[in-house]
Amino acid sequence: KMLRRVLCSVLFMGALPSLVEVSQGHISVILLGATGDLAKKYLWQGLFQLYMDQVSSGHSFTFHGAALTALEPGQKLMFDVLKKLACPPDESPTRCAVLKDQFLKLSQYHQLKTAENYTVLNREIETLLHQEGLKEAGRIFYFSVPPFAYTEIARHINSSCRPPPGAWLRVVLEKPFGHDLESAQQLAAELMSFFTEDEMFRVDHYMGKQAVAHILPFRDQNRQFLDPVWNRHHVERVEIVLKEIVDAKGRTSFYEQYGVIRDVLQNHLTEALMFLTMELPANLSRAEEVLQCKLQALQSLRGLEKENAVLGQYQAYTSHVQEELQKGQNYVSMTPTFAGVLIHSDSLRWEGVPFILTSGKALDERVGYVRVLFRNRAYCMQSEALRDAGHSQCKPKQIVFYIGHGALNTPAVLVSRNLFRPIMPEGSWREVIDQPDMHIFGQPLSDYYVYSPVKERDAYSVLISNIYHGRKDFFITTENLLASWAFWTPLLNSISHQAPRLYPGGVENQHLLDFEMVSGELAFTVAEPVELLNPNGPMPSDYKSIQSKFRQSPLVSAWTEVLISQLASDIEKTASKAVARSGKFHLALSGGSSPVALFQRLARHHYDFPWRHTHLWLVDERCVPLSDPESNFFSLHNHLLQSIRVPYFNIHPMPVHLNQRLCVEEDRGTEQYAKEITALVANASFDLVLLGVGTDGHTASLFPHSENGLEGAQAVVLTESPVKPHQRMSFSLALINKARQVFVLVVGKGKHDITTQISRVGRKPRKWPISGVSPSSGQLVWYMDYEALLG
Amino acid sequence: KMLRRVLCSVLFMGALPSLVEVSQGHISVILLGATGDLAKKYLWQGLFQLYMDQVSSGHSFTFHGAALTALEPGQKLMFDVLKKLACPPDESPTRCAVLKDQFLKLSQYHQLKTAENYTVLNREIETLLHQEGLKEAGRIFYFSVPPFAYTEIARHINSSCRPPPGAWLRVVLEKPFGHDLESAQQLAAELMSFFTEDEMFRVDHYMGKQAVAHILPFRDQNRQFLDPVWNRHHVERVEIVLKEIVDAKGRTSFYEQYGVIRDVLQNHLTEALMFLTMELPANLSRAEEVLQCKLQALQSLRGLEKENAVLGQYQAYTSHVQEELQKGQNYVSMTPTFAGVLIHSDSLRWEGVPFILTSGKALDERVGYVRVLFRNRAYCMQSEALRDAGHSQCKPKQIVFYIGHGALNTPAVLVSRNLFRPIMPEGSWREVIDQPDMHIFGQPLSDYYVYSPVKERDAYSVLISNIYHGRKDFFITTENLLASWAFWTPLLNSISHQAPRLYPGGVENQHLLDFEMVSGELAFTVAEPVELLNPNGPMPSDYKSIQSKFRQSPLVSAWTEVLISQLASDIEKTASKAVARSGKFHLALSGGSSPVALFQRLARHHYDFPWRHTHLWLVDERCVPLSDPESNFFSLHNHLLQSIRVPYFNIHPMPVHLNQRLCVEEDRGTEQYAKEITALVANASFDLVLLGVGTDGHTASLFPHSENGLEGAQAVVLTESPVKPHQRMSFSLALINKARQVFVLVVGKGKHDITTQISRVGRKPRKWPISGVSPSSGQLVWYMDYEALLG
Repeated sequence: KMLRRVLCSVLFMGALPSLVEVSQGHISVILLGATGDLAKKYLWQGLFQLYMDQVSSGHSFTFHGAALTALEPGQKLMFDVLKKLACPPDESPTRCAVLKDQFLKLSQYHQLKTAENYTVLNREIETLLHQEGLKEAGRIFYFSVPPFAYTEIARHINSSCRPPPGAWLRVVLEKPFGHDLESAQQLAAELMSFFTEDEMFRVDHYMGKQAVAHILPFRDQNRQFLDPVWNRHHVERVEIVLKEIVDAKGRTSFYEQYGVIRDVLQNHLTEALMFLTMELPANLSRAEEVLQCKLQALQSLRGLEKENAVLGQYQAYTSHVQEELQKGQNYVSMTPTFAGVLIHSDSLRWEGVPFILTSGKALDERVGYVRVLFRNRAYCMQSEALRDAGHSQCKPKQIVFYIGHGALNTPAVLVSRNLFRPIMPEGSWREVIDQPDMHIFGQPLSDYYVYSPVKERDAYSVLISNIYHGRKDFFITTENLLASWAFWTPLLNSISHQAPRLYPGGVENQHLLDFEMVSGELAFTVAEPVELLNPNGPMPSDYKSIQSKFRQSPLVSAWTEVLISQLASDIEKTASKAVARSGKFHLALSGGSSPVALFQRLARHHYDFPWRHTHLWLVDERCVPLSDPESNFFSLHNHLLQSIRVPYFNIHPMPVHLNQRLCVEEDRGTEQYAKEITALVANASFDLVLLGVGTDGHTASLFPHSENGLEGAQAVVLTESPVKPHQRMSFSLALINKARQVFVLVVGKGKHDITTQISRVGRKPRKWPISGVSPSSGQLVWYMDYEALLG
Repeated sequence: KMLRRVLCSVLFMGALPSLVEVSQGHISVILLGATGDLAKKYLWQGLFQLYMDQVSSGHSFTFHGAALTALEPGQKLMFDVLKKLACPPDESPTRCAVLKDQFLKLSQYHQLKTAENYTVLNREIETLLHQEGLKEAGRIFYFSVPPFAYTEIARHINSSCRPPPGAWLRVVLEKPFGHDLESAQQLAAELMSFFTEDEMFRVDHYMGKQAVAHILPFRDQNRQFLDPVWNRHHVERVEIVLKEIVDAKGRTSFYEQYGVIRDVLQNHLTEALMFLTMELPANLSRAEEVLQCKLQALQSLRGLEKENAVLGQYQAYTSHVQEELQKGQNYVSMTPTFAGVLIHSDSLRWEGVPFILTSGKALDERVGYVRVLFRNRAYCMQSEALRDAGHSQCKPKQIVFYIGHGALNTPAVLVSRNLFRPIMPEGSWREVIDQPDMHIFGQPLSDYYVYSPVKERDAYSVLISNIYHGRKDFFITTENLLASWAFWTPLLNSISHQAPRLYPGGVENQHLLDFEMVSGELAFTVAEPVELLNPNGPMPSDYKSIQSKFRQSPLVSAWTEVLISQLASDIEKTASKAVARSGKFHLALSGGSSPVALFQRLARHHYDFPWRHTHLWLVDERCVPLSDPESNFFSLHNHLLQSIRVPYFNIHPMPVHLNQRLCVEEDRGTEQYAKEITALVANASFDLVLLGVGTDGHTASLFPHSENGLEGAQAVVLTESPVKPHQRMSFSLALINKARQVFVLVVGKGKHDITTQISRVGRKPRKWPISGVSPSSGQLVWYMDYEALLG
């Protein structure tokens, strides 16, 4: 009866269209954790907003607050909150007062603790609807509870609180959704045993921030301007930033486990990044397509390594943790409270564009923004003094989705006036005409078109409205969630023992947290203050590389990094000399893991390397197709070839795959390669052969006691490896020893034993193939890191 | 006797070290055109400066002015000039007065007109030296005469004015050195018949500008700072600019033939560009190495097309020409007085970095500079208000070689303070401490370290000193000159009939000459004012592409450019569909010239093209090695593959080159390719085959009456072309007709006849192979431009 009464009184108001006849059915909203902080601060207000917005939609509503607290005290707690619900400034006070009264009448408190409680709730809803003669449209369960409670609640809902057939179920979940890929998978699997994908709405409240939520519509509505420039050719960089002044005090029990990357970057900033980088589906209203494009964008991000991040921790953090978590004075936390991460996408559209994500606590200001900075492609002929201030094409061009706080203190969309006048939906965004006289992002505010929302809505109101409308694209699907964790987890693992830089907090931080991009990596700009340094032994750069002898040949030894850079630079020198002498450089490279760092170094540095005159050969190959990830060529392709400009004609993979089969003798792959060598390499004498050494003393793919390649004159041979894949193709010792230069790279503790062994033995190639390497008229140089050499 | 007297009086001064004992011999300087403008304005002053600088070097000097004018009047003219020689501010007036007196005594005028005049001059020098008992060190002939006079003077010098064995000859030549590659080659060949390369000093006075001359030493002395950043990863753009206020009035007889590109860009700005981009030799004092590196830098510039330039002409120019050259009122000059050119280098170091060269007359200011702008790689965590003004890493970073005039009005080197404090040679450059309060290049001058020369020297003094020192690296060698013309001539040819944009001149130009880079091309930023437009018929964009039928299949027709962009976009659509369907896209491309524009379009636009899932095949190939410029694959490689990211494994060149021989049947290349197709392409049905049509009706490499490929089921065949290279490998009609889609691209007037012909005939593949193309279950689409279709 109550419902009908409320509906009638609504109709009495006259202002609302009569929709009772076309009733869309009834929606029950169950807010679990109805007396918690989030509910108090945002959720009830959001539900009230929903009611105000949808009261005339044809749907009828009831709102069920639920918690573990018993009925009486719970009821009191909840209604204390509801009484304080605010009327939005854009609503007429009379209408709001009436609607608030109705909202209170439609709200009820329930203790939900036992299985029976859920059964009772279900019966109550059914009874009510039956009494009122209403059809059930659906039920929304909003989980505003800690994640450990999820499973049990989910089980109860699934077993006893599902709406009848024909009505929908929507369960709304709040982060954290796991702690890393594995835990997220586990949690997802559990939930999937109770709910279908369609039923789950995982909230990232950033997607409800008006400026963030408008990124996709903005891109869609401004396609005609953005299409030519929304790519690597025009975008110089993107910054996605959430700075906080507050610290983690009072929240360390959560924070100490999570840290800034899990708390902010993995979810909020990543979502904003996806909205920016994803391909735009033809039709934004198709949630399926939007989600698919988003997933693709996530999957095309280049994997992160620890070098892609800078980490910080405000100095008082450890003491906050010691206090709140009762840790001893010796406890040192490694949890970062600040992170800057450099992300690259491998998509064709964004390749090479730096995406900088950064967030932290105890910083100098509270602000959030997504900033797209375009390259200056113009040259202005007029002298600076004569240039037109506002529209000059030589001024910076940027688009900023200003999330809030900071200097503007409102959500906003900013577009440089020399870019274009954006199309904005008139009903929801309006142009800010009276701009305050201020500078922002390096320019006067008057250089931008500035738009702010007609009605400022908090994120939860926006999200609750999206839940009501079933807009799955504003929520995190399981696939997207797992893809995001799959992206972030390797970084999280690699930095888990890395000490963050300490910073004092607030404006005191000065430039301590400024960072910059250096060859695809991130580093703090200012060197770490000495007193904060933790000198765990000497640093690599304290040692110069050692030059001496090994097996009668020159030995270069250093810490790995220095060694690799020395080797790369020696290879470049050899290359330049060879090109100067003969116009060409024939380089034969080995497979395996050791050279990967070398390939990367050659790819990223060494701008003068004469790649265009370099021929690349393989010393050995596994008998798998070239495009198999096991193939040596594949690794070379991934780590080097992709990044440099070697003409196609100069690349010589081993012909292990002929006539659709692998390393079959009759296909004469070895002969073919030998012929190719003879045709191109004078006297089959390579300018440089790069070798490694296995723990069994093998080199190239010449294994101990191999029948082929250790003796005899055949240049290229088929061999057998003791480990899979067994079949190999390899240079023979005869061919290797014809080279002008042979460099042997030996890296890592694991190689110490074999290094010690072969340092003492003579030429015994059948036992230790590497000992057979001794160029007849060329030079042999050993490159060993300290771990291989000294153990 | 005179000489000895002068030398003695010098010694009397006491201030100069006694060097007569270690005499280095005598140098005769002969200035041809001694009474001309350049001589008056710069050269005599430069020679006087040389004398002042080198009077105590141990060399003795005589200076011989020469011209066509008879002795008496010539002598008077010349000495009028000499009397006005100025004393530099950094020289003591007493010393200068004494030296000037001596300089006048050492100078003589000669009429040099006939062969005999030269013989007499030679005899006079010999006699003088004999009398004075001096050894001859060398002779400098400075050609300050119009280029048409070069040959005769050169002949006379060579035949009768060479110094005796053991002494050197240096002839100094002023531009223009030709008008294009051919004329430059011709002039160079002529000169080479009289002088050796070592003897010729071609002057580009820009190389004597102090700021320009310091580029290389700066790079050398600051290697430690520049090495990591002097490359495409750090440099955002480079601007090389020479702006003039003056117009061409009074010089049109020269200017009308040359224009701004020949006058300024081909020489002055190109030289500055080379100093910036060339690899630094280990030792700058080795002129040979410097010149070699410079030549390499020139040769690695990417070829220019007319789209790389914007051209302008100040509005009064045509009337200046009409007046001065007595042209009629209908004469319209096409000579550009303004040009902006976008240059790219293909070197690994600079790939992708835009080099903007620009110069013009009748602009708003006089200024010259070379500006290197670095990328901002930093992110500054502090809010803008809190950032340290001077050193913030987030401020722009630049290095400017300020040639002169403009706001600074002095040569200068500027380095942003947040970059590094440069090492500057103390004797010749000093830091400017009292910086005026001004903005330059977008920043307060106080953001830079600023250096200016200790002694300001005009370019000719610097160059004359370099001639004296035999510094060949400060002059243009024949090789370098021709390389520069080889670079600029194609652009000059392609724009010779292009109407430049008219501009009013001075500050009135406003933004009319601003330009910007759009996908590797240049365009004016502001659309051309309508009244200046010269509408020669309708523009391509006035027509939409026409859709109709040709030979019962869909026909897309448009102006070439529109057609190519439509075709590219249709290919992308086909690709996306194929990848969505099967995960792969098998694309077979034809050779020839028509698809080049298509390749370029695909390379530069189409960021969403699924290249990573695309397999590229060749429809046909010439029997030449793949790396031969004649090869279809080579063209595909150059115009497309280099720019995109197709995995190596997905590239399938035709195996025309097996066992070190070309298209030999026993090598079974056709079978091999067919097998590769069968293995990878389902049902050997390509997703898309792109064909062309020859004027004889051939398509792929299937020529009329071919024995192979027109009939039968063989997939890949060897054929014979009527034109060289005769041997070809080609898809057969059978294979083509299996494709899901076949696009035929027909472009150009030359194809109109065959187009007309085949529009009327049925299926007669033996006569017109193209008529045999009709996919059995796929679709055929014709893409023809209006010229091919309509003639």
